[in-house]
Amino acid sequence: MAGQKTGRLIGVGTGPGDPELLTVKAVRAIEQADVLAYFAKRGTTGNARAIVKAHIRDGMEELPLHYPVTTEIEKDDDSYKSQILGFYEASADKVAEHLSAGKTVAILSEGDPLFYGSYMHLHVRLAPRFPAEVIAGVTAMSGCWSQVGLPLVQGDEILTVLPGTLSEMELARRLADTDAAVIMKVGRNLGKIRRALNTTGKLDTAVYVERGTMQNTASALLAEKPDDEAPYFAIVLVPGWPDRPEAAS
Amino acid sequence: MAGQKTGRLIGVGTGPGDPELLTVKAVRAIEQADVLAYFAKRGTTGNARAIVKAHIRDGMEELPLHYPVTTEIEKDDDSYKSQILGFYEASADKVAEHLSAGKTVAILSEGDPLFYGSYMHLHVRLAPRFPAEVIAGVTAMSGCWSQVGLPLVQGDEILTVLPGTLSEMELARRLADTDAAVIMKVGRNLGKIRRALNTTGKLDTAVYVERGTMQNTASALLAEKPDDEAPYFAIVLVPGWPDRPEAAS
Ligand SMILES: C[S@@+](CC[C@H](N)C(=O)[O-])C[C@H]1O[C@@H](n2cnc3c(N)ncnc32)[C@H](O)[C@@H]1O
Ligand SMILES: C[S@@+](CC[C@H](N)C(=O)[O-])C[C@H]1O[C@@H](n2cnc3c(N)ncnc32)[C@H](O)[C@@H]1O
Repeated sequence: MAGQKTGRLIGVGTGPGDPELLTVKAVRAIEQADVLAYFAKRGTTGNARAIVKAHIRDGMEELPLHYPVTTEIEKDDDSYKSQILGFYEASADKVAEHLSAGKTVAILSEGDPLFYGSYMHLHVRLAPRFPAEVIAGVTAMSGCWSQVGLPLVQGDEILTVLPGTLSEMELARRLADTDAAVIMKVGRNLGKIRRALNTTGKLDTAVYVERGTMQNTASALLAEKPDDEAPYFAIVLVPGWPDRPEAAS
Repeated sequence: MAGQKTGRLIGVGTGPGDPELLTVKAVRAIEQADVLAYFAKRGTTGNARAIVKAHIRDGMEELPLHYPVTTEIEKDDDSYKSQILGFYEASADKVAEHLSAGKTVAILSEGDPLFYGSYMHLHVRLAPRFPAEVIAGVTAMSGCWSQVGLPLVQGDEILTVLPGTLSEMELARRLADTDAAVIMKVGRNLGKIRRALNTTGKLDTAVYVERGTMQNTASALLAEKPDDEAPYFAIVLVPGWPDRPEAAS
């Protein structure tokens, strides 16, 4: 249609899992959007949609973006890389169609959208072409340390956020040289993470949280967790503030 | 009263400034609390209270905790340290009185409560003695990078969060050895932060945000900001993901 206004892209942070950790702004954006888009594994509607379920209108237009590949392929594999890149391109094209038709598209992103989120791949492709807005969300790490009541960093301390996919040597080097740390992408990396923490004398204070703020959450001192099994939604927290009053008493 | 139940302590993250970035859970906790406590500079009711203002009941009991000292004293000064410690003890005692009387006390904390927040000083003193809960909040850094639409970390990248109070040498050493960085506590440290970024070749991509998500917010590429003036609520973001599609085009 001539002169038709383009729609608006909104990256919506859903928070870590508890639907009550949605922001007021995220709820409003979902309620007002024309189209609700979200990433999901094939054959599922995914975790992000489950978090916001209560706010989806009856008959609301949905755009599930199904990942073409699973974690069974090694991430360094060239075929994985080209498949996933093609997927992001195709997904951006699908969203762009709606935006060009004047529709507002809310794209869900677990936690915070611009912090290790798949949404980022759509944002960089679409934000230069369409009006775009990002609604910050509570990160998984905030959800996890709040759930277990663990003060993470205080005063002049340094926090290092590490993907568990790094090598054991690199993890150990980084852990040795920081006050506090968060290790994301734990999954099948937990054995390696445990060894790196042990090497650096930080295993004793490390806390393991899986499915933080979700209904089936579990947590433990990592040193007391008997195995190295961990789901995709798992994190390891290494707190700073060693001389906090609580610890001294 | 004999057999009276003790109250509940709730640390409530208010998010970075925009009242709509409160979580649904935070709103509910404030609405249901018996007493609303918050830190504030003398003579003010403070920023955290301003963020949640719309949710405070008429006649709700409030407990402002006024800092005894301002930033005019050097933080390493012994008299500062003992004053602030005494202040946290006295504040915890005041809150404990309400909790012992069976009241639920919501203590506001800007951003996320357990991430460099003053609330942490009350939490460690009270959580061992009373039922306590922490409601995660959107951090200042999430609010800031979302506002400017800056993808921060992606894939296997490392994020380092640095207080601007560190020495220039330490800042430069850390900045040289990370993919992405967030520098908090910018205030009067901006000149030093700028020099450290320049030394490490990262000044060009650094983004400065003051009063992120607040009504009077401002942001700029740090390299284009003409002076080193910065308010207390200011942050510097150094994004990762150098080869993102947008940057390449
Ligand atoms: C692709 S990153 C997404 C991070 C998200 N954008 C955020 O702001 O936290 C996925 C990783 O986040 C962590 N994660 C996400 N949700 C979590 C939860 N509820 N509990 C524990 N870890 C979680 C896990 O480490 C997982 O491997
Ligand atoms: C004591 S820390 C509190 C951090 C907070 N608990 C959080 O989760 O982000 C205060 C520092 O946070 C940063 N900050 C807080 N709110 C901000 C805002 N709205 N915009 C920019 N920086 C902010 C500033 O660097 C400030 O010096």
